[in-house]
Amino acid sequence: MELSLIGYDPAGAWIKNEQTVDGLLRHRNPAGLTWINMSGFDNTAEVNRLAEIFRIHPLTVEDILDTNHRPKVEEFDDYLFVVLKSIGTEGHEGELDLEQIALVITENTVISFQEKSGDFFDGLRKRILNNAGRIRRMGAVYLAWAVMDAVVDRYFVFLDAIGTGIEEFEERAVDEKDQNIIPDIQRLKQNLLRIRRVVWPLRESIQTMGRLDSDRIPVELAPFFKDLHDNVVQAADSVETYRELIAGVIEVNLSAVSNRMNNVMKVLTIISTIFIPLTFIVGVYGMNFKFMPELEFPPAYPITWAVMILIAIGMLIFFKIRRWL
Amino acid sequence: MELSLIGYDPAGAWIKNEQTVDGLLRHRNPAGLTWINMSGFDNTAEVNRLAEIFRIHPLTVEDILDTNHRPKVEEFDDYLFVVLKSIGTEGHEGELDLEQIALVITENTVISFQEKSGDFFDGLRKRILNNAGRIRRMGAVYLAWAVMDAVVDRYFVFLDAIGTGIEEFEERAVDEKDQNIIPDIQRLKQNLLRIRRVVWPLRESIQTMGRLDSDRIPVELAPFFKDLHDNVVQAADSVETYRELIAGVIEVNLSAVSNRMNNVMKVLTIISTIFIPLTFIVGVYGMNFKFMPELEFPPAYPITWAVMILIAIGMLIFFKIRRWL
Amino acid sequence: MELSLIGYDPAGAWIKNEQTVDGLLRHRNPAGLTWINMSGFDNTAEVNRLAEIFRIHPLTVEDILDTNHRPKVEEFDDYLFVVLKSIGTEGHEGELDLEQIALVITENTVISFQEKSGDFFDGLRKRILNNAGRIRRMGAVYLAWAVMDAVVDRYFVFLDAIGTGIEEFEERAVDEKDQNIIPDIQRLKQNLLRIRRVVWPLRESIQTMGRLDSDRIPVELAPFFKDLHDNVVQAADSVETYRELIAGVIEVNLSAVSNRMNNVMKVLTIISTIFIPLTFIVGVYGMNFKFMPELEFPPAYPITWAVMILIAIGMLIFFKIRRWL
Amino acid sequence: MELSLIGYDPAGAWIKNEQTVDGLLRHRNPAGLTWINMSGFDNTAEVNRLAEIFRIHPLTVEDILDTNHRPKVEEFDDYLFVVLKSIGTEGHEGELDLEQIALVITENTVISFQEKSGDFFDGLRKRILNNAGRIRRMGAVYLAWAVMDAVVDRYFVFLDAIGTGIEEFEERAVDEKDQNIIPDIQRLKQNLLRIRRVVWPLRESIQTMGRLDSDRIPVELAPFFKDLHDNVVQAADSVETYRELIAGVIEVNLSAVSNRMNNVMKVLTIISTIFIPLTFIVGVYGMNFKFMPELEFPPAYPITWAVMILIAIGMLIFFKIRRWL
Amino acid sequence: MELSLIGYDPAGAWIKNEQTVDGLLRHRNPAGLTWINMSGFDNTAEVNRLAEIFRIHPLTVEDILDTNHRPKVEEFDDYLFVVLKSIGTEGHEGELDLEQIALVITENTVISFQEKSGDFFDGLRKRILNNAGRIRRMGAVYLAWAVMDAVVDRYFVFLDAIGTGIEEFEERAVDEKDQNIIPDIQRLKQNLLRIRRVVWPLRESIQTMGRLDSDRIPVELAPFFKDLHDNVVQAADSVETYRELIAGVIEVNLSAVSNRMNNVMKVLTIISTIFIPLTFIVGVYGMNFKFMPELEFPPAYPITWAVMILIAIGMLIFFKIRRWL
Repeated sequence: MELSLIGYDPAGAWIKNEQTVDGLLRHRNPAGLTWINMSGFDNTAEVNRLAEIFRIHPLTVEDILDTNHRPKVEEFDDYLFVVLKSIGTEGHEGELDLEQIALVITENTVISFQEKSGDFFDGLRKRILNNAGRIRRMGAVYLAWAVMDAVVDRYFVFLDAIGTGIEEFEERAVDEKDQNIIPDIQRLKQNLLRIRRVVWPLRESIQTMGRLDSDRIPVELAPFFKDLHDNVVQAADSVETYRELIAGVIEVNLSAVSNRMNNVMKVLTIISTIFIPLTFIVGVYGMNFKFMPELEFPPAYPITWAVMILIAIGMLIFFKIRRWL
Repeated sequence: MELSLIGYDPAGAWIKNEQTVDGLLRHRNPAGLTWINMSGFDNTAEVNRLAEIFRIHPLTVEDILDTNHRPKVEEFDDYLFVVLKSIGTEGHEGELDLEQIALVITENTVISFQEKSGDFFDGLRKRILNNAGRIRRMGAVYLAWAVMDAVVDRYFVFLDAIGTGIEEFEERAVDEKDQNIIPDIQRLKQNLLRIRRVVWPLRESIQTMGRLDSDRIPVELAPFFKDLHDNVVQAADSVETYRELIAGVIEVNLSAVSNRMNNVMKVLTIISTIFIPLTFIVGVYGMNFKFMPELEFPPAYPITWAVMILIAIGMLIFFKIRRWL
Repeated sequence: MELSLIGYDPAGAWIKNEQTVDGLLRHRNPAGLTWINMSGFDNTAEVNRLAEIFRIHPLTVEDILDTNHRPKVEEFDDYLFVVLKSIGTEGHEGELDLEQIALVITENTVISFQEKSGDFFDGLRKRILNNAGRIRRMGAVYLAWAVMDAVVDRYFVFLDAIGTGIEEFEERAVDEKDQNIIPDIQRLKQNLLRIRRVVWPLRESIQTMGRLDSDRIPVELAPFFKDLHDNVVQAADSVETYRELIAGVIEVNLSAVSNRMNNVMKVLTIISTIFIPLTFIVGVYGMNFKFMPELEFPPAYPITWAVMILIAIGMLIFFKIRRWL
Repeated sequence: MELSLIGYDPAGAWIKNEQTVDGLLRHRNPAGLTWINMSGFDNTAEVNRLAEIFRIHPLTVEDILDTNHRPKVEEFDDYLFVVLKSIGTEGHEGELDLEQIALVITENTVISFQEKSGDFFDGLRKRILNNAGRIRRMGAVYLAWAVMDAVVDRYFVFLDAIGTGIEEFEERAVDEKDQNIIPDIQRLKQNLLRIRRVVWPLRESIQTMGRLDSDRIPVELAPFFKDLHDNVVQAADSVETYRELIAGVIEVNLSAVSNRMNNVMKVLTIISTIFIPLTFIVGVYGMNFKFMPELEFPPAYPITWAVMILIAIGMLIFFKIRRWL
Repeated sequence: MELSLIGYDPAGAWIKNEQTVDGLLRHRNPAGLTWINMSGFDNTAEVNRLAEIFRIHPLTVEDILDTNHRPKVEEFDDYLFVVLKSIGTEGHEGELDLEQIALVITENTVISFQEKSGDFFDGLRKRILNNAGRIRRMGAVYLAWAVMDAVVDRYFVFLDAIGTGIEEFEERAVDEKDQNIIPDIQRLKQNLLRIRRVVWPLRESIQTMGRLDSDRIPVELAPFFKDLHDNVVQAADSVETYRELIAGVIEVNLSAVSNRMNNVMKVLTIISTIFIPLTFIVGVYGMNFKFMPELEFPPAYPITWAVMILIAIGMLIFFKIRRWL
């Protein structure tokens, strides 16, 4: 578990790390804004301590600790509760890893709960400490928006990676060397499904948020949430387009594989078919009948060769006409 | 049929089993809360007796006794009527078994009707008797919520089992040994369909319930029903994701099977194709023509071998270039 | 055309059959309730006579006579008009047969128009005549509900038959003997489609009906229409589940057929492949070259056999390792 | 371009054809009802003249002249504008042909614009001239309804033809002679798609129309538009059912074709497989080794025959047991 | 970056190109209407200058510069902001190229931002300068409508090209020469997907726009936006129809390819099958047994030929009866 606090007021900004919630909160200036971030939930006592101080509903605490939640937004008397998912990668095979991020937004404090400690918010922290952009001039909801915006921006990194992956598969799909790319494509598709599970409910949640009372979301922030909503809709849109593209790649690949197989089988079968009658003919003159007039006839051997060559050529022409070659 | 009653009031909690409804109701304290559970409906007389005492509508009684109902919520003047399904397993082949649970929720009594007797509610009973959690401080609707929550929690056990099953199939799908896993996958899919039939209508029902008048559902319980609704939505979500994963596994398996088959056929056909012209050549020199000059020519035999070996090597090279090997 | 009238009032109940509408209506007691049933529309004059007496709109008459209508509910000033479909079987191949039933519900009369004469309503008639159940205590709308309920109940008979049929196909799908079950499954599926065409619009219609003004549908009947709606929704639900099950059965069957075919082809191809090199070898020593040292060498024949057996065993081992056997 | 006018008032009805709009309008009785029909738009000047007289919005004129519009209903201050499509056939291969029909409905005039001249409205014209049915007693909106009803009625002619076509394909799908019916089925499906493009948006349009103010659509006409809507919904319904039936026919055909192919390949492969070991055996005794004891052994030849027959029978039995025959 | 300004007032119209925004705005007549067009965003300073002058929200500026946005409409206090996509082609392989066009619509100014400089608006410019049509009589919203209409009109050019492409594929799908058209079809389908991504969200946006307050969209312009919406809906409609047609083409092609392959394999297999028993027979009489009575029998050779010919004919007849030929 890691605990950090960023506070800022007109006079300045400061960042602190502590082992306990109580220690951390000593750095808070109630007149300014405070952003508390907790990573990892191995110490539920500290979560409960936070809940106590900020009067967080027991169901919210349960939702924070259960990291299998769908993205959602809930209004409580004292705070807004937001669950969303950030996306990361796990080492082996580029499998996507979903991490839950929960936000409790009170009047002048944002508490973020991260499932694992990560470096998501480094950029945001710097902007606060350097007083870059609008961030230090605006309230807690704007800070929460900035956190959510940082999470959503990361989605596009992974969507772009999938887009690039699909383009690679488009080439591999018609490549003769690649034997079976379907399992690899399915892995890509599973990643896409994971992103979809994250993006779709978020779309609704942010829309809900944008429609909250102006007590909750100040009027001047509405365009920001609309913009965030647009981004999530666009992510959802890309997911759907990629699904269709993947379906197309699979179709192309199946047709390419079956086409190649057909060609192999056809040529090989044609070779067999040409030799089968010829082998029959040489078999005929390998028979040991006493009375076979052809055997005694001197030019029979070259004539046989001529006939066989004519048959072979005739069959090749026939196959050509029928477009089997 | 089993009949049990759990009653509790500020003074304490008690549990009783009786053979008849009238016997059972003697243990009721009308000032406290009462939970009556009936398992098995072989004795409809007792169901009717309950209906009479609690003024249950004849259509509700029909719905209780007909165990093929979809989950639903209905408001009556004197009570709320909830039908939902719990999931269990039947011995052979892990087939899922759906059991109907009906709840009649009056002001200070919850009556639950179970299709079969089971041990679903043991945990809940213990919590009441031990006065653990919120349960003894709150009213009948909270008790009903706790019953429904226990049922919904069990869904995830089976969903997780299906998730594990899908992962196993993902490995089997590309395993050369497994001949035909489609029938097994279909069995998994049927279980998933069964869960879906349970979960989807429940989603609506609980949403309906969360929107009932505050006379019916006290305001402070709204977050609990919202939480329950979230759980059911998440279950429905998992069902849909699993359906997509299963479709992916089937696609991978079909492509793996056809790939393997293609490889077998290709190699075998290539072997045939190489030997067919060679067999033709040896047939030629097996002919019995009197006048075949090659036959008398001493080095003809080794030359024939050399030619045949060259043809074989040439074909192998050709196949290699064409990437058929 | 068959015409019958069932009338009942506090004093009793009576049933009459007549050839003409005017004859029939003499048996009516305007103070009680009347149920007029007409089967077969070969005599449109009598339909028009009924329309005249009960002031039925010309469009309603057209709808009654055109038996290809979708289920619907329409409000007119003097009556409610309901169209629904009952399901029957036609002799050959168990094809489902849809029969249109139209109801005109006035204040104290229900007129039902059946496309063909059938024995649908026998049970209902008996209940009225025997004064069984609620039916004689309640009004025309309840009577109409009872008619609709009888029709909907029959749906489940056919749905259950389809469910049983699907289970049979699940076994046949993996049965080696059954060559091609797809056409039979498609027939089942067409029956299912027929039921769906009946059930889906009915769902909406009954919902509409349940929401009509309390002038039309007395408040105490609302639960009955809700119950009927639940039944229709459940039927629609079963239809969807059966569609998915059928899709699963087809998938299993296709994979079983292709698996079996693959096995046949594989074993047969392997047999050919083993003998082809052997046949080449025996061909070599069937050549008639004068100078073939092996031919003179006494142990050559047994050695050749030994080599051929070794080749065959080697290929079998190779196939085994490659898991082609 | 053809121009015709049908006028009627309490005194009578008359029909006139003229070359110009101005000529035509001289036959109009402003106190009665007028139906102007224009077929073919080669003379846009006349269209513009009509637009000027009836104050038709320039966008409406554009919509009338652009014959690629989707069905729609638009309210303007002075008139209702309706676009719908009628279906016809073009000579070759029974391809469906969509013709646009635009209606401008003013208080006492209906103007219909047909893309091509056709005989759609002959029946309607006769009914007006003969004063048959309600048509001469009612206003312009009823006349427009009658025109739309005539158009929609024609849809069913083509839907029925498609239904019959599907039944034919159901037989051809399992017929051994028919090699590849898929392209023909696809042509049927394209016709169905064309009808769907016409029917779906019309459904909405007519619903919109039925909900217009009673200034626009008199209350007593509401049932007529509801009836028309029912018809269109039923057409849409049939389209969907036919799509599913076509999908079923294709599935049946694919399974029948692959089944037949499998049977051919199986029998042929089995024949080869039986003869391959036998050919090997006769090859063995065609070898020219000096020292082959069997060759000298008198009963060797009949024994060889016996062995070969036994092998063949053994293989047939094996195939029978394995159900490959 | 290219900057141009078109201004017009009752007195006349003028067009100017400048390098800087400030230079450009000197040509503006605030009493008339001004259309500013900026192509290419390499100089963000000028974009920001425009934003400053017209009080454009920072989020809008971000949206203008980020050219990956979905079509949308946003209301701000001082202006309407519209994003849409125009379609062009890129040289190689006819791939579609989407260009973003952003419009800022203030009371008397329209600012259009084009991603790349193109000749889209040449027709529109001429109409303004020549005072053709309604354009100079109406306000800024009408000008914006004209810009959007020009963009949407171009969609149909590409949709028609796709329609033509599909018709070509319909022929190629059943053409024996074409080996594998699936990858080409998929390319067409990807273009279709691109258009869909553009058209679908635009549909919503224009609907939103048509429903804006009459302060924003003057009442007399409502039919124009309705017409534009109709066009976009029709484009969306065509996209869906083309998707279905493409699916049909693929199905036809797959069945044609598999049909052709089946025919090839069947004929070739039949040839093999006929010769295999014959080859066995000639093998029998090639055996070197000392005691084979047939060998000594003079007419044995012609009899063997007769038997072989009979077998071949018999097999052909059998194949014919079984319809394998």
